[in-house]
Amino acid sequence: MYVFGIDIGGTSIKIGCFYEDGALKHQWEIPTRKEKVFQDLSKSILKYLDFQDLRIEDVYGYGIGVPGIMQSGIAKKCVNLGWVDVDIRLEFCKAIGYDARVYVFNDANMAAYGEASLSKEQLDSVVFITLGTGVGGGIILHGEIVEGAYGLGGEIGHMKVDDFYQFQCSCGKTGCLETLASATGIVRLTFHLQNQYPTKLHLVDTLTAKEVMDAAKNEDILAVHVVKEACKALATSLAILSVTINPSLFIIGGGVSNAGEFLLQEIQNQYNEACIPLAKNTKIQLAKLKNNAGIYGACAYLIKKKHEVE
Amino acid sequence: MYVFGIDIGGTSIKIGCFYEDGALKHQWEIPTRKEKVFQDLSKSILKYLDFQDLRIEDVYGYGIGVPGIMQSGIAKKCVNLGWVDVDIRLEFCKAIGYDARVYVFNDANMAAYGEASLSKEQLDSVVFITLGTGVGGGIILHGEIVEGAYGLGGEIGHMKVDDFYQFQCSCGKTGCLETLASATGIVRLTFHLQNQYPTKLHLVDTLTAKEVMDAAKNEDILAVHVVKEACKALATSLAILSVTINPSLFIIGGGVSNAGEFLLQEIQNQYNEACIPLAKNTKIQLAKLKNNAGIYGACAYLIKKKHEVE
Repeated sequence: MYVFGIDIGGTSIKIGCFYEDGALKHQWEIPTRKEKVFQDLSKSILKYLDFQDLRIEDVYGYGIGVPGIMQSGIAKKCVNLGWVDVDIRLEFCKAIGYDARVYVFNDANMAAYGEASLSKEQLDSVVFITLGTGVGGGIILHGEIVEGAYGLGGEIGHMKVDDFYQFQCSCGKTGCLETLASATGIVRLTFHLQNQYPTKLHLVDTLTAKEVMDAAKNEDILAVHVVKEACKALATSLAILSVTINPSLFIIGGGVSNAGEFLLQEIQNQYNEACIPLAKNTKIQLAKLKNNAGIYGACAYLIKKKHEVE
Repeated sequence: MYVFGIDIGGTSIKIGCFYEDGALKHQWEIPTRKEKVFQDLSKSILKYLDFQDLRIEDVYGYGIGVPGIMQSGIAKKCVNLGWVDVDIRLEFCKAIGYDARVYVFNDANMAAYGEASLSKEQLDSVVFITLGTGVGGGIILHGEIVEGAYGLGGEIGHMKVDDFYQFQCSCGKTGCLETLASATGIVRLTFHLQNQYPTKLHLVDTLTAKEVMDAAKNEDILAVHVVKEACKALATSLAILSVTINPSLFIIGGGVSNAGEFLLQEIQNQYNEACIPLAKNTKIQLAKLKNNAGIYGACAYLIKKKHEVE
C-alpha cells in the first residue's frame, strides 16, 4: 500500500508518494492554478499511478495540507486560493473519481505533525512554530493535531505578546507575535529601531530578514537588538504555551529558522528568562524537514490512522 | 459498582461516593492533617464502606485531585501539604491496603474535567479558569486532561498578559494573569488605582474582592475600573487560548466568579475586543459545580475510563 502526502501552496502543490513504512517513493511539484487545483492535482496523481503501474486499490489514502483555516475537512477561509467554505475531501474525491480516504488539515498543522513524528515519543505534546512571511504553527497533543473548535488551533502568530511596539497585524489586532517574530516583523523592527542603534545595514526597501540575521551574527548593533526583540516576543509565546499546554518540545521552523544555531541560542536564552522555573527543561529545537514537513506530516498522519484501525 | 471522587485541599479533604451513572450517593469532608492524609482518607473510606455494607470489590476506582504540580500520578510539588515527589497512587494504595484503580490529577484539572463533563459534546475542547486566591485552570482536549510534560498543563494563572502594572507574581515573574484577575489581584489593583479614581470603598487591609465586585455593581468608579482591568487581563488570556488550542468553551469558576452575570458580561465584552474575528463565537460561561467540581470531575473521569475499557 502507498500513501500520498499533498501540500497545497499558493504557487505550487507538493505531492509525495510514500511507502507504508513512511519512506518516500517519489516527490514532485505542480504549479497552483487557483481555478483548477483539484483537477490538476488528481490528474497528476492518476498519471503517476498509471506511470508506476499502480491501481487506486494500492493507495491507502491521501493527506492534504491546505493554507487556510480548516475545520473538519472544510476550508473555512483560504485567502491565497480564494476559497470560502470549500469541502476539500469532497472536491478531491469528485476530481479523482472515487470515494478515497482523505484527511485534510491546515498546512502548518500538517507540517507540525511531520516534524513531531520524527521522534515518536514526542507526538504526545509538541508545539511547532514556523517563522516565515507570517508566523504560523501547529500543536500536537495526545498524538492528535489540535485543529480547534473554529479551525484556529496552532494559530500561534496571533498570540498577543506585545504592548510596547503595538504594530498592526494582518488580523486587525496589535501586538501579535507575528508583528515581531516573522520575517516581515524583523524587517519592520529594523526600520523602527534604526535611529536608536548604529548599523552597517543598508536600510533599503529590499532589506530581508536574512540580511538582518546575518548582520546580527556579525555583531551589528542594530541587528543584534532586533533579533533580541524578535526572540523575546517568541520566548514570551513559548513561556505562555509552557503553562497552558506545557509541551515536551518546541520546534522552530520557517525561513527565519535558517539562521540556525545562532537563532536557537537566542531563543533559548530568552526562553530561560521568560518561563517559570518548572518549565525550564522544555526542549527547543530547529525543524528538520523544512519545506517537506507538510507532505511527510500528511503521510505520517495517514499511517497513524491506519495503525489505529488495525 | 461505585466510584470515589476525592479532592484533597489544604484544610479539608472532600470525598464523594458516586453511582456508576455519575449520580452522587454520599458526600462528606474530613479535616486535612498534613502528616496523615492517606491514613485519614483511607480510614474514612473503609469506615464508609463498612457502614454501607459495601466491599472493596464494589468499588470500581478512586479519582484524586491534588493541589499541586502533578505528573503521571506523582505530586512533583505541593506547597500546601509539603509534598515533593510523592507517588499519590502508591501512598493511597498502601494506606487503603489493596491494589486499587486510582487516577490522580491536579485539583484544578480534575475540576475542569468535572465542569466540562456537564455537557458531553464539549469534552473535546474546554478551558476552565478558576479565579480564586490565585488563578488556576485546566484544559480538556480530545476528551483528555492536558496534564503537560512537566505537570504545568492548565496553569493559566501564569500566562504573561501584562506589561503595564508589572506586579510581582508568586512564581517569581511579573505580569502573570494571576497578579490581576485573582481575588488578591483585584484587591491589589484597587489599592494601586485608589488615587486615580473616586470611590466609596473603605480601603482597609481587610478589603475583599467581593466588596470590590459589589461596589462595581453599584457603579463605584474605582471598582468599575478595577473590574475592567481584571477582566481585560483575563480576556487577553482567553484570546491567546483561542488562537492556540481554540476551545469551543471557556468556563469561569472560583470565588471571584460568584459575582455572576455581571462579571461574565464584562469578560464577554473584553473578550470581544481582544479576540480575532473568527474566535468571537467561542462560548464563555460560569462554572456550575463550584466547590464540588473536583469530586464530580474525578468521578466523571473514572466512568470515562471504565467505558473506554469496556
